[in-house]
Amino acid sequence: MQITSIEIKDKRFDLLNGVGSDATHTTPQYAYAVCCLKTGTSLTGTGLAFTLGVGTDLVCKAIEYLSAPLIGRDIEDLMQDFGSVYRKMVDSPSFRWLGPHKGVVHLALAAIVNACYDLWAKSRQVPLWKLLLDLTPEELVNSLDLSYLEEVLTREQAIEILTENLQTRALRQDVLATGYKGYDTSVGWFNFSDEKIVANTKKAMDNGFTALKLKVGSDDPMRDIRRAGLIRKTAGDDATIMVDANQKWNVPEALDICRKLGEINPFWIEEPTHPDDVIGHQTIARNIAPLKVATGEHIPNKVIFKNFFQAKAMDFCQVDAVRVGGVSEFLTISLLSKRMGIPVVPHVGDMGQIHQHLVLFNHIGMGHEHLFLEHIPHLKQHFINPAEIVDAYYQVPQIPGSSSDLKD
Amino acid sequence: MQITSIEIKDKRFDLLNGVGSDATHTTPQYAYAVCCLKTGTSLTGTGLAFTLGVGTDLVCKAIEYLSAPLIGRDIEDLMQDFGSVYRKMVDSPSFRWLGPHKGVVHLALAAIVNACYDLWAKSRQVPLWKLLLDLTPEELVNSLDLSYLEEVLTREQAIEILTENLQTRALRQDVLATGYKGYDTSVGWFNFSDEKIVANTKKAMDNGFTALKLKVGSDDPMRDIRRAGLIRKTAGDDATIMVDANQKWNVPEALDICRKLGEINPFWIEEPTHPDDVIGHQTIARNIAPLKVATGEHIPNKVIFKNFFQAKAMDFCQVDAVRVGGVSEFLTISLLSKRMGIPVVPHVGDMGQIHQHLVLFNHIGMGHEHLFLEHIPHLKQHFINPAEIVDAYYQVPQIPGSSSDLKD
Repeated sequence: MQITSIEIKDKRFDLLNGVGSDATHTTPQYAYAVCCLKTGTSLTGTGLAFTLGVGTDLVCKAIEYLSAPLIGRDIEDLMQDFGSVYRKMVDSPSFRWLGPHKGVVHLALAAIVNACYDLWAKSRQVPLWKLLLDLTPEELVNSLDLSYLEEVLTREQAIEILTENLQTRALRQDVLATGYKGYDTSVGWFNFSDEKIVANTKKAMDNGFTALKLKVGSDDPMRDIRRAGLIRKTAGDDATIMVDANQKWNVPEALDICRKLGEINPFWIEEPTHPDDVIGHQTIARNIAPLKVATGEHIPNKVIFKNFFQAKAMDFCQVDAVRVGGVSEFLTISLLSKRMGIPVVPHVGDMGQIHQHLVLFNHIGMGHEHLFLEHIPHLKQHFINPAEIVDAYYQVPQIPGSSSDLKD
Repeated sequence: MQITSIEIKDKRFDLLNGVGSDATHTTPQYAYAVCCLKTGTSLTGTGLAFTLGVGTDLVCKAIEYLSAPLIGRDIEDLMQDFGSVYRKMVDSPSFRWLGPHKGVVHLALAAIVNACYDLWAKSRQVPLWKLLLDLTPEELVNSLDLSYLEEVLTREQAIEILTENLQTRALRQDVLATGYKGYDTSVGWFNFSDEKIVANTKKAMDNGFTALKLKVGSDDPMRDIRRAGLIRKTAGDDATIMVDANQKWNVPEALDICRKLGEINPFWIEEPTHPDDVIGHQTIARNIAPLKVATGEHIPNKVIFKNFFQAKAMDFCQVDAVRVGGVSEFLTISLLSKRMGIPVVPHVGDMGQIHQHLVLFNHIGMGHEHLFLEHIPHLKQHFINPAEIVDAYYQVPQIPGSSSDLKD
């Protein structure tokens, strides 16, 4: 199946009434730069990169430049050695100068790479999670670019992780019967009133969720502490509550406020400071332990994740396949996480559409723990095959592809 | 003086015969995304961001978006509290998502910020270096955004560095008579033949240069070692020779090859591996000492520089004002470098046009050592006021502004 042409779409979705707001992104619009690989058949590979509206056109333009060499390629042939294709795209000199491996050009790469995996799965008529499980360890690793990781993860070690876990898959297959547990990110957006977060918490618990997130990072930390206390009181001591500062604090502020938020026993504190600050996160993680740090939605590539793991600067890895270089780099970072003992709990700029597949593979194929996956319902009506949540569990997707197709 | 409109230019310059080539950027085109702040007078503020050709249009489009709020602003008024203006631009939520503080949108910011400082200097009818020296410590620091650095550099500490060095300026004013020493980057581009690098070395020495750079990172390390030996033999034991791998090696490779290159006693080894790899550089720096590591041309912002300094992962800071957020962030990183004891030897994507001003200020105003500044002559004919090099010293620019204006 040959890629005959590429269509690029700039899709933007307005949000209302404080939905999606956090301490840094106060009135977001959600948006996707979409790469569509056309084939001359009814099948189209669709790949997403997530943005916040203005500037999505920059990502779309970069998709146009970077994806051009894919035209004329056969999808099976392309994916046999996709790691090399990937490296050639990311190391194209003039685009590399605009990064390397970060920002607008890397978001564009995410959309392109995701479209390739989507088309690969569709062409084999299987959902993405099954495509990945059906690949041999060598075939899977051939689709990855492991450069710049050699001192911590070699090709041989990557294959070894997959091979070892191949033998124990049966122990983890039950997730295909139960589905993958979700957590509710939408109870506590930043601009929601106290009354609303209490009402949302009750509703989420009624719907079966036992894990919830609250946005913090208020100018007045007492607002954060009050609201965290309200959710704890409403949800009860057994509930899992995460707090998310969205990079708002500097390091001294984070140290001070995290200690105070510790009173409500949060499961993690997310993005306490600037996402580039490896040493800052290391300082925070050391000082607030046993409280745990989660971050990753703004970390653009495997090299920086490697540094975070080496520095023990995060306890949970929130890599996002619509931020890093797509499914390929997501899997690379998941292997690296596994090797270095860090659990992966993705951020879902894709609203969980692709990640519902990826966490199934991470659990069954790589042996990552079945923790939970973020659930954000706000764009559900725009997807052709929206993720299905029943009793707070993502239902296992059965339709071929990566569930990324959007309605027109 | 009011900014009445903004003109944006995409300028590209072909290079011939291997000029500009390195191990990663094999056949570069040099290019600038240019932000021109028009005033309704004969004065225009010009700011550059450096790119490698294709994709410069993305930076230009981002300049258009990010600079729009500057229209109607008075330049003196704008610069009184430019640190806040800067932070508002970099933290604009939808653009921040495309970084934060890196890639295409941050390059666009560089061009905009540089145009603001250029116009500020032109409106006061002084060269940029003199504008900066004439500012009080408080005025200078007001033009900076020190957020996310608080644990290592507070506003008070920044002012203190400048105030202390105000009192000792007389000891360093002689640079205004001698000019600032240059080093020659152009003897040893990657694609040049052995014969050519030997001939160029002789010519550079004849022209008074005592410091030279060779591009390394060949697929066969023996080529690097042979060529480094040739330059050492030609230039003599007293010459200062730097080698530059342009990110080509992974960490194990870098450790191996740096030790071998140590034989020619290089002054520094530049960009031994991926520019995001703080821990990788730390490992290399620790293991190859007393050999020294230089990096920075691809480090996009102050937070990552902070990490490199904290980890003792670089010995020379090669911040580039046409990569980070312009003059403002360059000065922030220079203050941080001073505070943490790291010398600043800028990379010159601007061909030294702006940096000739900035190193004068760094030396006189901040007390940074007068080492040397990279000299690259290839775009000289395109600048209206090209940097003048006499006997390998940058002559002190006297024309108002930052020497950034390009011919049409």
